[in-house]
Amino acid sequence: MNKNTFAVTPPMGWNSYDYYDTSVNEEQVKANADYMAKYLKPYGWEYVVVDIEWYSMDAGSQRDRYQYIPFWDVAMDEYSRLQPCEQRFPSAAGGKGFAPLAEYVHNLGLKFGIHIMRGIPRNAAHAHTKILHSTHTANEIAQPNNICDWNPDMYGIDPKAEGAQEYYDSLMELYAQWGVDFVKCDDICRMDMPTAKEEIRMLSEAIQKCGREIVLSLSPGPAKIEEAWYYETHANMWRITDDFWDDWRLLLPMFARCELWQSHVKSGCYPDCDMLPVGKLGKGFADERTTGFTKEEQITMMTLWSIFRSPMMIGADLPQLDDWTKSLLTNEEVLRLLKYSEGARQMMRNDKQVVWCTRDTQDPVDYIAVFNLQDTEETISLPWQQIEQYGVHAGEAKELWTGETTDLKGQDAVNVAAHGAKLYRVTRA
Amino acid sequence: MNKNTFAVTPPMGWNSYDYYDTSVNEEQVKANADYMAKYLKPYGWEYVVVDIEWYSMDAGSQRDRYQYIPFWDVAMDEYSRLQPCEQRFPSAAGGKGFAPLAEYVHNLGLKFGIHIMRGIPRNAAHAHTKILHSTHTANEIAQPNNICDWNPDMYGIDPKAEGAQEYYDSLMELYAQWGVDFVKCDDICRMDMPTAKEEIRMLSEAIQKCGREIVLSLSPGPAKIEEAWYYETHANMWRITDDFWDDWRLLLPMFARCELWQSHVKSGCYPDCDMLPVGKLGKGFADERTTGFTKEEQITMMTLWSIFRSPMMIGADLPQLDDWTKSLLTNEEVLRLLKYSEGARQMMRNDKQVVWCTRDTQDPVDYIAVFNLQDTEETISLPWQQIEQYGVHAGEAKELWTGETTDLKGQDAVNVAAHGAKLYRVTRA
Amino acid sequence: MNKNTFAVTPPMGWNSYDYYDTSVNEEQVKANADYMAKYLKPYGWEYVVVDIEWYSMDAGSQRDRYQYIPFWDVAMDEYSRLQPCEQRFPSAAGGKGFAPLAEYVHNLGLKFGIHIMRGIPRNAAHAHTKILHSTHTANEIAQPNNICDWNPDMYGIDPKAEGAQEYYDSLMELYAQWGVDFVKCDDICRMDMPTAKEEIRMLSEAIQKCGREIVLSLSPGPAKIEEAWYYETHANMWRITDDFWDDWRLLLPMFARCELWQSHVKSGCYPDCDMLPVGKLGKGFADERTTGFTKEEQITMMTLWSIFRSPMMIGADLPQLDDWTKSLLTNEEVLRLLKYSEGARQMMRNDKQVVWCTRDTQDPVDYIAVFNLQDTEETISLPWQQIEQYGVHAGEAKELWTGETTDLKGQDAVNVAAHGAKLYRVTRA
Amino acid sequence: MNKNTFAVTPPMGWNSYDYYDTSVNEEQVKANADYMAKYLKPYGWEYVVVDIEWYSMDAGSQRDRYQYIPFWDVAMDEYSRLQPCEQRFPSAAGGKGFAPLAEYVHNLGLKFGIHIMRGIPRNAAHAHTKILHSTHTANEIAQPNNICDWNPDMYGIDPKAEGAQEYYDSLMELYAQWGVDFVKCDDICRMDMPTAKEEIRMLSEAIQKCGREIVLSLSPGPAKIEEAWYYETHANMWRITDDFWDDWRLLLPMFARCELWQSHVKSGCYPDCDMLPVGKLGKGFADERTTGFTKEEQITMMTLWSIFRSPMMIGADLPQLDDWTKSLLTNEEVLRLLKYSEGARQMMRNDKQVVWCTRDTQDPVDYIAVFNLQDTEETISLPWQQIEQYGVHAGEAKELWTGETTDLKGQDAVNVAAHGAKLYRVTRA
Repeated sequence: MNKNTFAVTPPMGWNSYDYYDTSVNEEQVKANADYMAKYLKPYGWEYVVVDIEWYSMDAGSQRDRYQYIPFWDVAMDEYSRLQPCEQRFPSAAGGKGFAPLAEYVHNLGLKFGIHIMRGIPRNAAHAHTKILHSTHTANEIAQPNNICDWNPDMYGIDPKAEGAQEYYDSLMELYAQWGVDFVKCDDICRMDMPTAKEEIRMLSEAIQKCGREIVLSLSPGPAKIEEAWYYETHANMWRITDDFWDDWRLLLPMFARCELWQSHVKSGCYPDCDMLPVGKLGKGFADERTTGFTKEEQITMMTLWSIFRSPMMIGADLPQLDDWTKSLLTNEEVLRLLKYSEGARQMMRNDKQVVWCTRDTQDPVDYIAVFNLQDTEETISLPWQQIEQYGVHAGEAKELWTGETTDLKGQDAVNVAAHGAKLYRVTRA
Repeated sequence: MNKNTFAVTPPMGWNSYDYYDTSVNEEQVKANADYMAKYLKPYGWEYVVVDIEWYSMDAGSQRDRYQYIPFWDVAMDEYSRLQPCEQRFPSAAGGKGFAPLAEYVHNLGLKFGIHIMRGIPRNAAHAHTKILHSTHTANEIAQPNNICDWNPDMYGIDPKAEGAQEYYDSLMELYAQWGVDFVKCDDICRMDMPTAKEEIRMLSEAIQKCGREIVLSLSPGPAKIEEAWYYETHANMWRITDDFWDDWRLLLPMFARCELWQSHVKSGCYPDCDMLPVGKLGKGFADERTTGFTKEEQITMMTLWSIFRSPMMIGADLPQLDDWTKSLLTNEEVLRLLKYSEGARQMMRNDKQVVWCTRDTQDPVDYIAVFNLQDTEETISLPWQQIEQYGVHAGEAKELWTGETTDLKGQDAVNVAAHGAKLYRVTRA
Repeated sequence: MNKNTFAVTPPMGWNSYDYYDTSVNEEQVKANADYMAKYLKPYGWEYVVVDIEWYSMDAGSQRDRYQYIPFWDVAMDEYSRLQPCEQRFPSAAGGKGFAPLAEYVHNLGLKFGIHIMRGIPRNAAHAHTKILHSTHTANEIAQPNNICDWNPDMYGIDPKAEGAQEYYDSLMELYAQWGVDFVKCDDICRMDMPTAKEEIRMLSEAIQKCGREIVLSLSPGPAKIEEAWYYETHANMWRITDDFWDDWRLLLPMFARCELWQSHVKSGCYPDCDMLPVGKLGKGFADERTTGFTKEEQITMMTLWSIFRSPMMIGADLPQLDDWTKSLLTNEEVLRLLKYSEGARQMMRNDKQVVWCTRDTQDPVDYIAVFNLQDTEETISLPWQQIEQYGVHAGEAKELWTGETTDLKGQDAVNVAAHGAKLYRVTRA
Repeated sequence: MNKNTFAVTPPMGWNSYDYYDTSVNEEQVKANADYMAKYLKPYGWEYVVVDIEWYSMDAGSQRDRYQYIPFWDVAMDEYSRLQPCEQRFPSAAGGKGFAPLAEYVHNLGLKFGIHIMRGIPRNAAHAHTKILHSTHTANEIAQPNNICDWNPDMYGIDPKAEGAQEYYDSLMELYAQWGVDFVKCDDICRMDMPTAKEEIRMLSEAIQKCGREIVLSLSPGPAKIEEAWYYETHANMWRITDDFWDDWRLLLPMFARCELWQSHVKSGCYPDCDMLPVGKLGKGFADERTTGFTKEEQITMMTLWSIFRSPMMIGADLPQLDDWTKSLLTNEEVLRLLKYSEGARQMMRNDKQVVWCTRDTQDPVDYIAVFNLQDTEETISLPWQQIEQYGVHAGEAKELWTGETTDLKGQDAVNVAAHGAKLYRVTRA
């Protein structure tokens, strides 16, 4: 299998984390999937991803003290593999795992994804439980000092231990049986622990063996630019930032990150700008709210993610989506860039403004994105020398968020709102 | 209680680690104690210290793979406190802990010490066991990402958690009941983990509360010089080096470490140069051997430790002590410096030689130590300007390792063997 | 002017440094140019570059003590601009600078390049000399603590000072008058000093203003990968390594560097692997020798530089070129990759072997390069899964160093000499 | 000569920097000396120190752009030695240097000090000027990349160059001829450049050779604690902080610095807390003002400097001293600690309060200093356990800033003003 064909354009979908934190349940996942199938699927949205700690008993119940309750009970099969907690995922009863939920999602014409943590459960290591297709046990492959700094569930795995690859193989074998299409592995992308690099390889090898085209997504960032080739070889997407939230102070540095990774976007290989924190957020964090981004900031985010071709995972609770946010997420002409553009490059960036260009792969059009980083509406200059050097020329243009048309020829600058963006589709001469 | 009175001069004793690693048993401890009582006690040697993992089942049984078997069974009471493993310490049966062994040692006129790891057993955290005098349980004070990098037994403790101080109090209460005179706490001195500093304070507070004068020794080094005052406030000795072994490449950097810490030696406060790896070593490490140090190197080590006034813990298996090593460890005139000298200072140090001076606190004599760092016998110059500035003057002298007498007046240099030392006791004019 | 059109394929030429160090003179430059015009030009070699300190009096005369004599006299015009030292470049007499030598080179159908150091001469700053087209003087734009760590000639320039841009403009104005085609600026690429980044921009702006298409090359490396976009925007080539010499221990790490920069090679933008230390080297360093590389190592270097599309600058003294080295440098089928290949990517790399692929832009052929990093001849496996994923398929092939043909279909591995390489041109099916 | 006898108690004096910056002149120095002789000398104040750039032409005349004008003219003798600039020090005319001013100061019964920068003048290196008693010239001992980061006057000296020690010897020979009692060498204490350590040794050796007891003071800090022994061996005082000014945010960290260095204060060896920025400050900086410290903060500073036994150099312009500040600087009972106390130790320190103790060496009294770090008046607890452990016991006490007497017996706490201090002299029982 060629892993680059698993996702020939950047994955688009929904992820439970931004709204539900660790507490999402089956009913809520279904409600979001239903909404996506009904309203978003025509625009390319297709992945439904259950994020962290679907296996943890009482997850979220001690939220004032812990995000992740340490030393607690988890659902696990006899082979040290975590299972959906039946408290929250009743269809998992009888050892069926996520198969029923995956089937539900597939029946809607969508794809199903799950989050996992790098390693093997601490509970398995302490209980010396078995590893499928191996004579070795969990304690023999777990490393006691190989841990995640922010989550207490797992021990990292010794890549040299016998049974190590077998354990990752057994995970992907199970996920393939369940019908999983997408695995987001956490505590691995940043390579905080020395074994993480090898564990990425083990995951990728396990996917090749399992026979199912499972997209591999690595978290959290920032990914290491000096390992770009390694990510490209083994994974489909890798986070280029730490957790992203609805705060301009987090959106601003994304321009530097996209500059850094711009040469590394290609089919099957996506530097990942993280979830879209729009709409309703934060309930599981005891901080339920509407996104803290202004509308202009959301347009900036969507424009950057689109022209850069980041994967897009919606953080909002979909059933509560308001009309404006829905329109933001269903602008066909903008989302087209994820599917049919290539070779995007930054034209210029300073403290005040950023300009990017890209080319359409099918239609005779090009794109120019203009960002205003300042706190007031400003006239933003267009760096035509760089733009022409890139191969894009001024001409008839349509601004894709407002629908306004204009002739850019002779235009040295455009007005852009505070923290806002304009995305021009320019007809080739 | 004033902790500085617990050890008014640097502690001297024996420690099980260098010969037995994790595997020492009751019989072996007694044999070493017997030897000490009979042959070494008259020279000031008095502590008998049981080092790491006396609580671990099967300790040392998987030595080809692990020094410390991870995720394994330990002996523990209902209050999350580790107990001597009855496999190796039969007298601990019936919940008596180390009390019988401590009594045995006390009956020989000696003192009894144990090694502990910072934190609370991982097994306790996962089992949610109780804490004495507290309504909280082990999992509530253990921190899942607060671990030792090289030993898998414990989780570090959250200093802000309710029950944290109670747990350390309960340890010292138990050790006082057992009759422990000396606690060497490991994974704490270097402050690798951010809570280690607070855990030092908690240990010191627990000792104050327990009512017994327990000497507190901190490992491993190198201690942080910028925390000198903190160590002095809370502990009696702290390691200024990582584990020290019988290798000249480890002895050489001790001169820089002693230079660094020379102003910090005072009654009850001892920067610690670590154990004396002399005689028979390494059995528990599957590397049984006679010390790799030459005789001259051993003289250098003893001279430096003595003039610097480091605590001295013998690493050899005492019953196998040869005559030469015994004489090395029973040179009264040299060991006198631990008891009756003060204010030692380095006079000079370069790549080739080192000179130190100190003063006797009772007799009208001073001391000059001359070290040759070179690989050949050399004539080592005496920096009289520095020595006189310090307040020591040339005069009649006795070299304390050879017994030879000489008049240093007018002597600009002395011959010293390769890697060797001379220690002069100079009569004040 | 579009700086990317100044060098649409990687520059190829000769540089005086590896053989002559600081001491090269006019006659020697001409002799090398003559050789190039006669024997190498047909293969694409065209730049003749005079490297460091052509302006320094007595350069090389105190080579036992200094590579660069500090606080020494330099040739400089009234506008603080360094001039060729007439001692070594007689044609520069009468203020003609490098114009006569450039003309000589141009008349051979070749291009002329020079090396400069970032900044303004220290001598100018201390003498308060003038800046062309400015009322400010050298001391006003020089920064006293902005220096090069290894060369004493210059002070770095304060980008905010009035007169700063004018000074760089005046340099490029002069070089354009001389007929310079290529400027290699040193002490700038690694951005050791904080102003270096702005000085790159000032250089690029000065080139745009000067009206001549001057290729801008930045040294020394390693360039900062996080500044990739910045180099691409302002320069034509940038060193990805510190000085490269004829030593396998320096060649080996080039594979990691090429992996790192592989996505950043495009027309007008070349990560630079540094000079080719082949043939006769080192005379100016008082270490005259034939390259220390084995033939196989030279083939490895040429193969990597070619498939990666690094600029190529010969370090040898050309008139002394032996036949074998000449054949190495005139293999048309190999050198073709610099001109007519695109999109090279590493297929795999470990401690033992490396494989790269690329595509021809004109002919229906692809290329596979196989490197053996080991110290013995080995059978190197071909990672067909990766290669096919990249889009190259097994078929009829010619090995371009030996001329042997083979059918790679079904071949899982090939023999490669110790430290050697094979470069296959594969016909597309 | 024993350098520790040059200053048997911490030096006390005045320094021109805080008020005059680089611009101080002879008349101003004399005015300050006159004031000191008349009003301060009885309290132990005796050094009059001319700080930075007494040799620089036009010093201070471009203060809006430069603190130190780069590439400028300096007064220098034929042996590369800087001379007082006659513009500002007319008595230096005729090659007399600082001799006349030193004599003036001596005639007042005071001592004379100067500031120097590490190294040899850049102007000397570029002019190849001579070195006294050497055949070598300035350019041969200056290192072109060995510079100060913040001052452009000098190049550092290559300790291995012939002529290097001779140059430092020639400086001290000159200063001894002038009658200098105190040299503050800058750009050396922090060892920013690798040669600084050796240059300290060269300075100390030069002082030994010159035959005059010149106190050696090293700047700027923070000094490296791991080099404590080295400073103690070669210098009399060394700065433990970067430049200290009248800002609570700079005073607060001094408690941590004093904690760090407390074991290193002894006769002839003084960790230095830097000048006292009291009274009128900042004229030369174009920021003339009365100190920004509150009275309580000044009491805190004086109390800490006194009990720690830091050298004390007044930063104020003395002729403008107000009565309150004068009283602050002439409290005999407080200043007594500099002369007659020993062995000061911190008893406790946290974010809110600090307590120190020391002992009088002549009278049967001890001292307790209590500091309130908080922004409001607070009741500060007295840590009697630590204090008694140190050897000081509660008893009749006098607070030395207010003169109030009290019996500390049974007192668990005392009120202290915001950012203020109390200094108790306690009668021994």
